Amino acid sequence: MRVGHVWLVGAGPGDPGLMTVRGLEALRGADVVVYDRLVNPTLLDEAPAEALRVYVGKLTESHCLPQEDINALLIAHARRGRSVVRLKGGDPFVFGRGGEEAEALAASAIPFEVVPGVSAAVAVPAYAGIPLTHRRLASSFAVVTGHEDATRGAPHVDWSRLATAVDTLVILMGARSLPRIAATLVACGRAPSTPVALISWGTTKAQETMTCTLGDFADPQASLDLRPPLVTVIGDVVSLRDQLRWFDVTPALKAAMATA
Amino acid sequence: MRVGHVWLVGAGPGDPGLMTVRGLEALRGADVVVYDRLVNPTLLDEAPAEALRVYVGKLTESHCLPQEDINALLIAHARRGRSVVRLKGGDPFVFGRGGEEAEALAASAIPFEVVPGVSAAVAVPAYAGIPLTHRRLASSFAVVTGHEDATRGAPHVDWSRLATAVDTLVILMGARSLPRIAATLVACGRAPSTPVALISWGTTKAQETMTCTLGDFADPQASLDLRPPLVTVIGDVVSLRDQLRWFDVTPALKAAMATA
Repeated sequence: MRVGHVWLVGAGPGDPGLMTVRGLEALRGADVVVYDRLVNPTLLDEAPAEALRVYVGKLTESHCLPQEDINALLIAHARRGRSVVRLKGGDPFVFGRGGEEAEALAASAIPFEVVPGVSAAVAVPAYAGIPLTHRRLASSFAVVTGHEDATRGAPHVDWSRLATAVDTLVILMGARSLPRIAATLVACGRAPSTPVALISWGTTKAQETMTCTLGDFADPQASLDLRPPLVTVIGDVVSLRDQLRWFDVTPALKAAMATA
Repeated sequence: MRVGHVWLVGAGPGDPGLMTVRGLEALRGADVVVYDRLVNPTLLDEAPAEALRVYVGKLTESHCLPQEDINALLIAHARRGRSVVRLKGGDPFVFGRGGEEAEALAASAIPFEVVPGVSAAVAVPAYAGIPLTHRRLASSFAVVTGHEDATRGAPHVDWSRLATAVDTLVILMGARSLPRIAATLVACGRAPSTPVALISWGTTKAQETMTCTLGDFADPQASLDLRPPLVTVIGDVVSLRDQLRWFDVTPALKAAMATA
């Protein structure tokens, strides 16, 4: 009895051009693709026409498949000798529960490989013209999720310590928690003048970026008009966006740049 | 007079399979490739045979080109109407000085695009079987460089605050500073029993991984027998490696897994 193989593949943050060469190879050889909501649908077309495509939803959806069932699905298909690609938005080991899937596969002696992806934590700010580090402005960054569902049962995020521990703070998801998080950061010593960027649907044609200060944002009256998926960047590097924005430039700005 | 275009491309952490599809496209259309030491040489073969290849070294080398000269080189080639790929190890905006290059290009009105890469900070731990986050073990991670040259003139890294602010700490480079950093982290409240992984030449055939505890490591007598490039992971997620290692398994272990 031939045992199959599972690839835990990061599909990148949205732009299908940010898929890796190895991930694409795995997808083109797949018998089964098990995918999430945030995976760009054009990537699914890369799998063979006859491959089985299984949608397993997203944590925040009411009809998503529980993690244990996803693990069992990967194992069952691999035991039938199939090449299984578990395709996840971003990177499988950055808030992707890829670690839990790998544990289940290892416990069942299913051979697996990890194909890291371009993380939204880095690439979404880059598409908004924001480098996470910069020689003058930032020597460190931290990545956390603002999404409480995603961290249920997980170690508590200590926002008060995080407030001043790193130069750049990247928060994935969690739009509803953001005003509360911002208020905590300010209360714990982060300057209210710290610039903040909120980036919705980053790296896609629908990308929208809003900038403000941490103080504005901590105002409970502030309304947040951006839809998930959302990446928030807090730190002085956000100020570089005015000069470095290249992806979400307006047509007028693009024309002005081309003739400059 | 036609103005060229510059792509700031992340080549990924070493394994050429982790290059992005977009990065490969840019490379295949390049007139000029300006690259660093940590770029996998097989990627350079993807550029057209007639493309100019310019090696600009690495910060730590005595004969590297100063950053201002690299910026000037990119601008000069673009002004001659060329397609210029600036190929950098990992991601261009994570300790890659890509932000400074983008600033120079923007100031000279040279059109540019950023092609994010798979960061060594995420992928190297993944190839050692270590997810940076995990539902039971880690809800946050921070990335810093231990390399003082890379941060000259940059904001000071506050190791004492970092010690207990995040669950997982990833340190890029800086082998020589590591024992001192470890001692600071322990002095500032991080448990000496915290597991640590040091990964040398991650994602390549030369990958070597050593694990110990933060306490062992803080011992000034400890000798470090791993060569750069080095990625260090500090945190409870390191304990998952025993179960999840898949890339740097010994042949005997691989055979045992296949017959299990």
